[in-house]
Amino acid sequence: MQLGKVVGTLVSTRKEESMQGLKFLVVKDIDVQGQETGKSVVAADVVGAGVGEVVLYATGSSARQTAVTKDRPCDAVIMAIVDEWEVDGELKYRKVSAEAEWAS
Amino acid sequence: MQLGKVVGTLVSTRKEESMQGLKFLVVKDIDVQGQETGKSVVAADVVGAGVGEVVLYATGSSARQTAVTKDRPCDAVIMAIVDEWEVDGELKYRKVSAEAEWAS
Amino acid sequence: MQLGKVVGTLVSTRKEESMQGLKFLVVKDIDVQGQETGKSVVAADVVGAGVGEVVLYATGSSARQTAVTKDRPCDAVIMAIVDEWEVDGELKYRKVSAEAEWAS
Amino acid sequence: MQLGKVVGTLVSTRKEESMQGLKFLVVKDIDVQGQETGKSVVAADVVGAGVGEVVLYATGSSARQTAVTKDRPCDAVIMAIVDEWEVDGELKYRKVSAEAEWAS
Amino acid sequence: MQLGKVVGTLVSTRKEESMQGLKFLVVKDIDVQGQETGKSVVAADVVGAGVGEVVLYATGSSARQTAVTKDRPCDAVIMAIVDEWEVDGELKYRKVSAEAEWAS
Repeated sequence: MQLGKVVGTLVSTRKEESMQGLKFLVVKDIDVQGQETGKSVVAADVVGAGVGEVVLYATGSSARQTAVTKDRPCDAVIMAIVDEWEVDGELKYRKVSAEAEWAS
Repeated sequence: MQLGKVVGTLVSTRKEESMQGLKFLVVKDIDVQGQETGKSVVAADVVGAGVGEVVLYATGSSARQTAVTKDRPCDAVIMAIVDEWEVDGELKYRKVSAEAEWAS
Repeated sequence: MQLGKVVGTLVSTRKEESMQGLKFLVVKDIDVQGQETGKSVVAADVVGAGVGEVVLYATGSSARQTAVTKDRPCDAVIMAIVDEWEVDGELKYRKVSAEAEWAS
Repeated sequence: MQLGKVVGTLVSTRKEESMQGLKFLVVKDIDVQGQETGKSVVAADVVGAGVGEVVLYATGSSARQTAVTKDRPCDAVIMAIVDEWEVDGELKYRKVSAEAEWAS
Repeated sequence: MQLGKVVGTLVSTRKEESMQGLKFLVVKDIDVQGQETGKSVVAADVVGAGVGEVVLYATGSSARQTAVTKDRPCDAVIMAIVDEWEVDGELKYRKVSAEAEWAS
């Protein structure tokens, strides 16, 4: 899975029929230090993620292993909202109530 | 899914039999700011996208999860035409009637 | 699918049993302007492509969606020979009888 | 499979239901010389790997071929802890009891 | 499939149960000119490849299409030992008895 930050939303009214009802979020990749990598993806959301939240997303056929995305032409899904992670014993990120807190 | 801009069409008469009838479009990748990334792909179209439109495409096995591409050697499919998206609260793109409008 | 130019052939006598009889071609990736990208792949051929021809190839599980490659450890297949494509209304490539013609 | 070094842990309480109980580890890719490549991934762990250990991880649908990850939206799994490897006849890494030893 | 050169071996005693008995080889990617690309992979071997040999390997779900790797968390398999290939009519590599010969 990749770490990403939800930065926006995307609207599409004309899409493959089975994609009706899926919520699309715009996600920027971040690395394990919390820095943006320059890559981005549009992912379906199945966990109720919001703009500003740090998430994990899965790609490829794994993105279809949810009730919502099964058998759909969907290759990226947000499957977890991140609470915190640490690297080499240092806290890199912790979600605080409504807002995120980045360890410096 | 990746954002892309349809820039052209591709014709092939000699192809794997199951690919007969599929429409191939040439797509340039764009990032969430709307800038071209330098990557491109040739994708099958199942939503009636036209040159100049901004689309979402899915890759890998997910590209075969449509009635038109099922069980075919197709690894990229345009599955949505983008109406608009925003990043950090700013509108980055909105489709206007027949033409697209880019937010500056 | 990716655009590529067939540049050569590859011979292997000692291979996984199910791969017997498959023809391997060496393919250089080209972008939508017709320029080499520096990437290359060895692909199975199911459409009778020859050296010098511009082709489309599919990767991943999609490469196994042909009668010839089904259930084989094959992750790249040439599934179409390109006749022509255009970008932004300009012809970028047209196959002419036995030889290819590049638009300048 | 890719070589990686486990550098940390990640916690998520709000995630796709089927992901409950999976342990997420933060992994930095390393190349065959043992150098970090700059890429990273968050992987599910099915072999009891710990921070500091060098592991192999598998991606894509292959990441779901374990009892723990089957049918889940999981696209990266640590499936082996590395004891040692060598390149061109030279030992590059050997795990020593609780700590790893890098050949210089 | 990608071209690679087998440069070493890797040992893991603690691994996902179904991976028992698989032989892991360290492979450096080479391009169609025979030059290393800087990428590498650890692949399962199903054709008896040895260090120094030039091989083809398949990735993703295609890596599981052999009797040995079926239903295992394996995403890269060496499925052919290369005898020779040519590019633009020039021989780039030919395997000679026990040793490989590179065309200059």
